[in-house]
Amino acid sequence: MSEKKDLQDCVEELRRERAQCSFDVEELTNIFDGGKELTARRREIEHLICSDPAFKDEVPPEYLSHEDLYTNEVRKVTHLMRKLAEHNIPLREASITQVHSVLRDGNPLIVHTSMFANALASLANPKQQQQWVPLAEKNRIIGTYAQTEIGHGTFVRGLETTAIFDPETKEFVLHSPTITSTKWWPGGLGKTANAAIVMAQLYTQGKCYGPHPFFVQLRDFDTHHSLPGVILGEIGPRLGINSQDNGYLRFDHYRIPRTNMLMRHSQVLEDGSYVKPIHNKLSYGTMVWTRVAIVHSCSKKLACAVTIATRYSAVRHQSELVPGKPEPQILEYQTQQYKLLPHIASVFAILFSASSVLRMQRNVAASISKGNVELLPELHILSCAMKALSSQDSTQGIETCRLACGGHGYIASSGLPSLYTSTTCTITYEGENTVLLLQVARYLIKSYRAGLEGLPVLPSVMYLTAPSAMHQSPPLSNQALIEAFRISSANLVKETESRLCRQFNLEQNFHYAWNRCSVALVHCAELHSRYYMCEKFLSTVESIRASDRVRSVLQDLCRLYLIHHITLNQGHFLRSGTLSGVDLSTLEEEMYELLAKLRPQAVPLVDAFDFRDELLGSTLGAWDGRVYERLYEEAQKSPLNKTDVSKAYHKYLQPLMKSNL
Amino acid sequence: MSEKKDLQDCVEELRRERAQCSFDVEELTNIFDGGKELTARRREIEHLICSDPAFKDEVPPEYLSHEDLYTNEVRKVTHLMRKLAEHNIPLREASITQVHSVLRDGNPLIVHTSMFANALASLANPKQQQQWVPLAEKNRIIGTYAQTEIGHGTFVRGLETTAIFDPETKEFVLHSPTITSTKWWPGGLGKTANAAIVMAQLYTQGKCYGPHPFFVQLRDFDTHHSLPGVILGEIGPRLGINSQDNGYLRFDHYRIPRTNMLMRHSQVLEDGSYVKPIHNKLSYGTMVWTRVAIVHSCSKKLACAVTIATRYSAVRHQSELVPGKPEPQILEYQTQQYKLLPHIASVFAILFSASSVLRMQRNVAASISKGNVELLPELHILSCAMKALSSQDSTQGIETCRLACGGHGYIASSGLPSLYTSTTCTITYEGENTVLLLQVARYLIKSYRAGLEGLPVLPSVMYLTAPSAMHQSPPLSNQALIEAFRISSANLVKETESRLCRQFNLEQNFHYAWNRCSVALVHCAELHSRYYMCEKFLSTVESIRASDRVRSVLQDLCRLYLIHHITLNQGHFLRSGTLSGVDLSTLEEEMYELLAKLRPQAVPLVDAFDFRDELLGSTLGAWDGRVYERLYEEAQKSPLNKTDVSKAYHKYLQPLMKSNL
Repeated sequence: MSEKKDLQDCVEELRRERAQCSFDVEELTNIFDGGKELTARRREIEHLICSDPAFKDEVPPEYLSHEDLYTNEVRKVTHLMRKLAEHNIPLREASITQVHSVLRDGNPLIVHTSMFANALASLANPKQQQQWVPLAEKNRIIGTYAQTEIGHGTFVRGLETTAIFDPETKEFVLHSPTITSTKWWPGGLGKTANAAIVMAQLYTQGKCYGPHPFFVQLRDFDTHHSLPGVILGEIGPRLGINSQDNGYLRFDHYRIPRTNMLMRHSQVLEDGSYVKPIHNKLSYGTMVWTRVAIVHSCSKKLACAVTIATRYSAVRHQSELVPGKPEPQILEYQTQQYKLLPHIASVFAILFSASSVLRMQRNVAASISKGNVELLPELHILSCAMKALSSQDSTQGIETCRLACGGHGYIASSGLPSLYTSTTCTITYEGENTVLLLQVARYLIKSYRAGLEGLPVLPSVMYLTAPSAMHQSPPLSNQALIEAFRISSANLVKETESRLCRQFNLEQNFHYAWNRCSVALVHCAELHSRYYMCEKFLSTVESIRASDRVRSVLQDLCRLYLIHHITLNQGHFLRSGTLSGVDLSTLEEEMYELLAKLRPQAVPLVDAFDFRDELLGSTLGAWDGRVYERLYEEAQKSPLNKTDVSKAYHKYLQPLMKSNL
Repeated sequence: MSEKKDLQDCVEELRRERAQCSFDVEELTNIFDGGKELTARRREIEHLICSDPAFKDEVPPEYLSHEDLYTNEVRKVTHLMRKLAEHNIPLREASITQVHSVLRDGNPLIVHTSMFANALASLANPKQQQQWVPLAEKNRIIGTYAQTEIGHGTFVRGLETTAIFDPETKEFVLHSPTITSTKWWPGGLGKTANAAIVMAQLYTQGKCYGPHPFFVQLRDFDTHHSLPGVILGEIGPRLGINSQDNGYLRFDHYRIPRTNMLMRHSQVLEDGSYVKPIHNKLSYGTMVWTRVAIVHSCSKKLACAVTIATRYSAVRHQSELVPGKPEPQILEYQTQQYKLLPHIASVFAILFSASSVLRMQRNVAASISKGNVELLPELHILSCAMKALSSQDSTQGIETCRLACGGHGYIASSGLPSLYTSTTCTITYEGENTVLLLQVARYLIKSYRAGLEGLPVLPSVMYLTAPSAMHQSPPLSNQALIEAFRISSANLVKETESRLCRQFNLEQNFHYAWNRCSVALVHCAELHSRYYMCEKFLSTVESIRASDRVRSVLQDLCRLYLIHHITLNQGHFLRSGTLSGVDLSTLEEEMYELLAKLRPQAVPLVDAFDFRDELLGSTLGAWDGRVYERLYEEAQKSPLNKTDVSKAYHKYLQPLMKSNL
């Protein structure tokens, strides 16, 4: 009876929210997907997968032991691979969808299908590709990428694994001389992969040539048993992504043929002589591709979180806005709007800057083919900056959404905990954020100094020394705010550079001085990167092909994003003199107005992300808003609820309760 | 061979760090514990527990299924209770130790031993206490506290569970009329407890008197079977604390005797007439106590995290500080010092403000006994403020420490993931932070307005309207910074209050106006609370009985804390005109100096927290620094590593690899 009533309330509530929509949701969905056709294709593939009962877990994975979790995810991912192949859906195409979400806690084949495949393509020479790529595509070879060691991460030159060429047998001898040289982390390495691309210090003719990639078979291709000289296993449970069997790997004087060195760039000839690459910057390509992929997945994960939290906030009623009146939807509270709407805006900011980096990559690729590599550093730096910011923003945004759902956001079935645990790791991998931001800072300082000396600098950093354009843009207009951003960023770089000079005069050592300024340098990199994201968000919204109504809601989101990040960085704007305290009060007032203006669009905006319930996998975020029924139904699945009295009672609790202490 | 070498390196490294210590570690440990005697007693109890093999898990809990995890934790907690009882160690005394850390993922009896016991003491009348307290102490009754409902959290008046008095039978009829009225969350409710204190809407003589507490038996005291009319179970997996069997509870016209209403404050007589309490503010007591307990545990959890991250940072070597030179300890990097040292300071800031609130509580209790309750609101507000800030600070601090350990911080065996998942929930429970901060803001606005009208205001908020003391303290001295904090906070309250008035003039409705200002109001509450913490940290350090060397290191930490939080809030200081851009640059310079000055004390400082390896439970944070050996040894415990080829290969992987797709 009353359950029925609740259900109708929630559905009714979301219907009312959707009735307030001011724009064409489908149009925004197409923009989010990158085009009408992509939306259609995505839905087609997602329908195919979601209609397959094999992907439903009868017991939610959170209840399983570590080993059963892995087994169950292998079951699903192998079925997924077969299903996609049967329907001739290339993995590249599947990656535009959310179908990977049927894998609830990581994907044991993800490194095989992405990094391993990419690395083969970019590091192996044509002959080697003929030999291995078809086997990898047929999954005869399941590969992973083994670079990081337990004692060595970001600093690749510090790797300890050795590959010593033996001219007698024309073989490389792979060896792990210390415990710190143990390969550690590669996804799928523990139990799934039978081969790996291994980065090892190349020695030949008594000389070390630094880390080079080798194709290494780890397990028998028939029995899957690990080969003699290869010691491997999985590294154990983690905060999340627990079914990816991240592994460790040690070599005991393990021999591979000379021709297993991946020789596209550098080679070792039969006689052991080393041939070095033409220019190694080309290997940037893969790194940039991977980082942009991370940025893209960050925006998707954040979109999932804001969808869950926004729908829940429209259904959840709590406390009193006006004493005596019924409890309002928590979305009515300004504090709740402030927790959600800036992150809805952030989804687009991340997505649009990812696209701009991708566009740039295409141009760079084109100019490389013309032999021009000068734009590569710029591309590399921008991909570092975007990876750092978007991993940070999405992780914090997801956590804010989780906390905005109160206690229910802490429950696994809300989907928010796994969104958090599977996103926070992007802060660390593919270049730890602090390290990446310091690379950005190095580029800023270098470019600033070059600019001062009148040397040429690349487009994204010209503003550091080019006299500010001084547009006659109206005060506090978007253009004026972007200009304030630009001036503040240039100002911060200028101040930090002179701080660096002062330190250098004290220390008489550039590297110590650099370290003594590195916290300030990270701030420089963050402000510059934020400026870039704001600028890209704005320019995209201004140039986008869309109806007035869609453009208008995107403009509001963009404006909110600009003001929000200015208030978060207000110190820099006040110190650069670009904004006054009065300006900031005015902007804060406008931000609160924008929250109120966008509040009725909140649910339609997250609807536009178009996540299917099966792939969103959240008791709080489903389309129909039946939050409480779903929470209750999910709880019934707990194995502990199968019996009224638990094993633990008879074994341990009863003796305590009956004992005479 | 080389493993040996690594081991010696690490131990050697930490020995060098400890040799740099500038103060008496044991003295600081005593301060941290609250006295020499407490340190001694703590160690005695911890030794007793840690020397008991029953608390060692042969399989780490992260590998277990949800059900086995619960069973294993019940095994350990019942053994712990028995052990403490055998040695006549009261739970109150055990709570000064870290022994609860032997329970790795929550404690199914924690609500029974803390909240349930406290609630009985403060809500039951003497007769009822005689009846139930002894049974609870002997664990015949295992109780929990059931207030929150699946549809109702913070707003207690919104609870839906009804308790209708039936004068015929002199019974209360407990009922859950809707699905949203389902009790949800109480720890131990799912499978462990056989009784609960239930908050329900009291109806008698056709009138509702609001939520009141009832003692309710849920399970048969002999068979532990749930009783007819009681529907309960556990709510399922969560981000963390998964062995606490948080539960749900529904009543189907379930009858309890009239005398089960907890009647210390209000009563229902046999004829059904309602007798209301003298003054209900007294129930504040328990809430304050619980919140201070949370603040205290937050400082302990943060102390664990900084211990792990600091020791790891002294052992971990990464990248180049000077090209060509060996990789330095990552603790040498300023960015790493910046991630760790402010949070070491934060441990003391949280601890010292908790003590000051406790001292205040004692005074208030004393004055209450003299019938004077006027200080209660102040105590209540300060406990709200401290709970909100310390839960936020410790959660963020732990996460920063986890990320500062790179990939290894993501591994369960580092201990950091569970520190995070078990601390972040303090942001939500016992009053969600945003709600608490808005209560603080309400108090600030009320007091500010009262002050303007010359009405009396309580000590902690007098500064809002009292003309600033204008000490002749030297610029940027601690006193000057505290004064800048005070002025900035008063300034922010003043501005926000006038914003509130403007909104009121627009809306003509106080509550809508309040909501329209609530984001700004939260900022007011945060700045005021931060000012309070800084002030308490400073006054404690200035008045503390300690040797010069210990005081000196505490002074450095306090100074770092002050400057760090000023730079984080620099916008407020610039806008209040209390600090200029130049001042901030000077303070930033000093902060970087302090990082360098405190860096050699980092390891000794965390050593002073004196966590035993067994209770810290971290592969990265152990006393001897054998990080890599421990990570490797822990990985060997994975059930997946028991066999070379996994079940999953034969069942699912092989068919895919051999298939012809």
